[in-house]
Amino acid sequence: MGSSTLIDALTGALPPGAVLTDPDLRRSHQRDEAGLCPAGLPAAVVRPTTTEQVATTITLAGQYGVPVVPQGARTGLAGGANAGDGALVLSLTNMDQILEIDPLNRLAVVQPGVVNAALAQALAPHRLRFPPDPGSWESSTIGGNVATNAGGMCCVKYGVTSEYVLGLEVVLAGGEVLRTGRRTPKGVAGYDLTRLFVGSEGTLGVITEITLGLKPAPAESLTLVAVFDTTAAAGAAVAALTAAGTTPSLLELVDQTHLAAIEAYQPMGLRTDAAALLLVAVDTGASAAADLAIVEQLCQQAGAAEVYAATDATEAQALLAARRLAYHSIEHAAAKAFPGGNGGVIVDDIAVPRTALAEVLDGIARIAAARQTMVGVIAHAGDGNLHPNIVVDRADPDSVARGQAVFDEIMELALSVGGTSTGEHGVGLLKRQWLAQELGPVGGRVHQAIKHALDPDNLLNPGKVVPPPG
Amino acid sequence: MGSSTLIDALTGALPPGAVLTDPDLRRSHQRDEAGLCPAGLPAAVVRPTTTEQVATTITLAGQYGVPVVPQGARTGLAGGANAGDGALVLSLTNMDQILEIDPLNRLAVVQPGVVNAALAQALAPHRLRFPPDPGSWESSTIGGNVATNAGGMCCVKYGVTSEYVLGLEVVLAGGEVLRTGRRTPKGVAGYDLTRLFVGSEGTLGVITEITLGLKPAPAESLTLVAVFDTTAAAGAAVAALTAAGTTPSLLELVDQTHLAAIEAYQPMGLRTDAAALLLVAVDTGASAAADLAIVEQLCQQAGAAEVYAATDATEAQALLAARRLAYHSIEHAAAKAFPGGNGGVIVDDIAVPRTALAEVLDGIARIAAARQTMVGVIAHAGDGNLHPNIVVDRADPDSVARGQAVFDEIMELALSVGGTSTGEHGVGLLKRQWLAQELGPVGGRVHQAIKHALDPDNLLNPGKVVPPPG
Repeated sequence: MGSSTLIDALTGALPPGAVLTDPDLRRSHQRDEAGLCPAGLPAAVVRPTTTEQVATTITLAGQYGVPVVPQGARTGLAGGANAGDGALVLSLTNMDQILEIDPLNRLAVVQPGVVNAALAQALAPHRLRFPPDPGSWESSTIGGNVATNAGGMCCVKYGVTSEYVLGLEVVLAGGEVLRTGRRTPKGVAGYDLTRLFVGSEGTLGVITEITLGLKPAPAESLTLVAVFDTTAAAGAAVAALTAAGTTPSLLELVDQTHLAAIEAYQPMGLRTDAAALLLVAVDTGASAAADLAIVEQLCQQAGAAEVYAATDATEAQALLAARRLAYHSIEHAAAKAFPGGNGGVIVDDIAVPRTALAEVLDGIARIAAARQTMVGVIAHAGDGNLHPNIVVDRADPDSVARGQAVFDEIMELALSVGGTSTGEHGVGLLKRQWLAQELGPVGGRVHQAIKHALDPDNLLNPGKVVPPPG
Repeated sequence: MGSSTLIDALTGALPPGAVLTDPDLRRSHQRDEAGLCPAGLPAAVVRPTTTEQVATTITLAGQYGVPVVPQGARTGLAGGANAGDGALVLSLTNMDQILEIDPLNRLAVVQPGVVNAALAQALAPHRLRFPPDPGSWESSTIGGNVATNAGGMCCVKYGVTSEYVLGLEVVLAGGEVLRTGRRTPKGVAGYDLTRLFVGSEGTLGVITEITLGLKPAPAESLTLVAVFDTTAAAGAAVAALTAAGTTPSLLELVDQTHLAAIEAYQPMGLRTDAAALLLVAVDTGASAAADLAIVEQLCQQAGAAEVYAATDATEAQALLAARRLAYHSIEHAAAKAFPGGNGGVIVDDIAVPRTALAEVLDGIARIAAARQTMVGVIAHAGDGNLHPNIVVDRADPDSVARGQAVFDEIMELALSVGGTSTGEHGVGLLKRQWLAQELGPVGGRVHQAIKHALDPDNLLNPGKVVPPPG
């Protein structure tokens, strides 16, 4: 029993080129993009192209007692795709076929390795879309979206991945192939196994086919930017937009630290003295202009220092560019602050009640100041989903320790206001202890019971998500 | 060990009046509104008012090995609430408090016994609503909605119950109290236990508190009726509305049998020679009139014999009245066809791909004719969700057998076109065998494994939903 014998067995059972043991390649498949998470060196990387090959891989791995770690594009931010030493990485990137697009029934059937951008391109001629739009959408896979229940900027109006998954094909820990869900818009036949697997981060089974429900592509959006001198005013604007029943298709917040970082990275004339900027889009077709006027009025009433509406799609795209630069700009700020390639960013992800937005922004600023650590926040404000980006000097253990302390204190703050430890990035390794705290002992035991029911030998992505016993 | 000793223990542990053994009351709590389903006489009906009392009841029932059958308003249509002989009925109707309405975070926290209509009334002043609108909404409970993942007419635009459940409190089979989910709009912390319990029909735990995400109340709707001489033309209209990316808030179909039954029950001037009537509403605010004009045009292009748009809300309500009368009218037709109180209606519920609508309507008509049985169909056409209502003479075993055969043949038809055995009513007892067929052996085993993980002694609503082993 061991990985080398397993590799022989896999090489014999799978097509040429599917089992890879090159050390460089194994090293490049150790981890996703999460900070603070350990990762080991996998024994091999298996790249199947069919469900049958996935089943063979899992069956053989089970026989040899070698853990299986599923991976997509490794753009995850919680360490859910990190390998353990000697594990088998099951990379699904070669299962990248769009199997079906059915415009009249508004559905698509895809393999897990299909890249978000490729699906968007294939759906565009049909005037359809799969709304979830994680920041990584140009490279991340639909399988990754499903495994993490990914979100993005669209969620304030269109919801997260699980709203769009009608059914799945899943290879279980024993190698059996399960089909869940349906191809119909509605259906309640049995337990909602589809949504049990969505967001389970590869711990319950390996997803090999996904049936997606689609939405009509919206009409062109109208967009505005509102600048606020206080976080309280920005929070009041978000609350007012919610209370008024507006349905923005995007409601993003950029904090002062991020505004300064963006302006330093690529000068755009942003008001770097502002406490926060809100970016709001509406895509309500014929009534969009009227709806945007209401948004403008509500932002002004909430105390915006300045409101600027884009007059056409080109200008709207320019406004979005600032938001899209946010992550690169904070990486740039980290690199400048800690030269020699040591500047790093810990990307965090919490969700809080919308009404707690200003309180949490102020709390994060206080935590950052007390720990002498730079923290910029971008937020899917309409969903109360914040991404505090914590800048550390990876060469300085004290800086990393302070970053970790900031991370923990932000997590405590989120839970203390009735929030959750992850809004859209998932648990993986990064949040496993925090999930245990959030769930409590009964919730932890139910997670363990379900994991045990489906994967009794703890073969699939062990050590992720599920709180450890006790 | 037995129910009488259990009843003594419960009576001692629960407040006066919570444990009821009156024979008439027990008889009145034997079953829900499903046809074709067996039901036994429960040993007692327990009516708790707190989560703690539910936990006490379940713990004691477990100690005495007596099954627990949760019930709400017993308006279910699949026998999911039917008691077994000697079982303990756990009626949640006295847990009817709306615990919280938070307009700024658009959520409500309710006990399971809150009636849909009572919640709608409480939310109205806040201009908020919980969209699911099952036909029974004036009497059915939110707990029942959650247990069955109920739908209704709104689903074509607003989705089913599970889209609106943020979190749950659940008493597990061992008497432990589990909290799932969150109070934030977004969150992916751990397995989606919330949606595992939604639609599980009381087989995995007893839901004692529900946190609901709410929607802004829509602007007033505009409505039209389109009459078609062929089901093919009606189906083509539904396909055209979907393909054009319209977002009706209601897209209902009434078939010829139902049109005749409605007109016989309450003359409204309906075209009883038509093959089908479509009822379409839009609630898109400022663009509603323009959107309804597009709907009208698409119906005409698909071959509508007549299209009539309501000019105001009062007239729109009048158009909806016909649809609302559908079920009562077929009951009336059954009573007229089989005098002496023997006329009965078996309410069925299938969902098929939208594009199969006309094919399935024609198939049902053929099945009905071949079995000399009256079957009227109303459909949430925009979701491909059909309710064939099968009229039988309950005093005539041959008529009931033919009704059962019609039911089975409709189910086979639905599955053969890629549909599902239940679109919104659930599995209960009525569809348990059909669920087994739809899931296949692997899906059946996964259901059994999850049931066993959460309820190892098969205490909670035994014999429902989960396919039997083998």
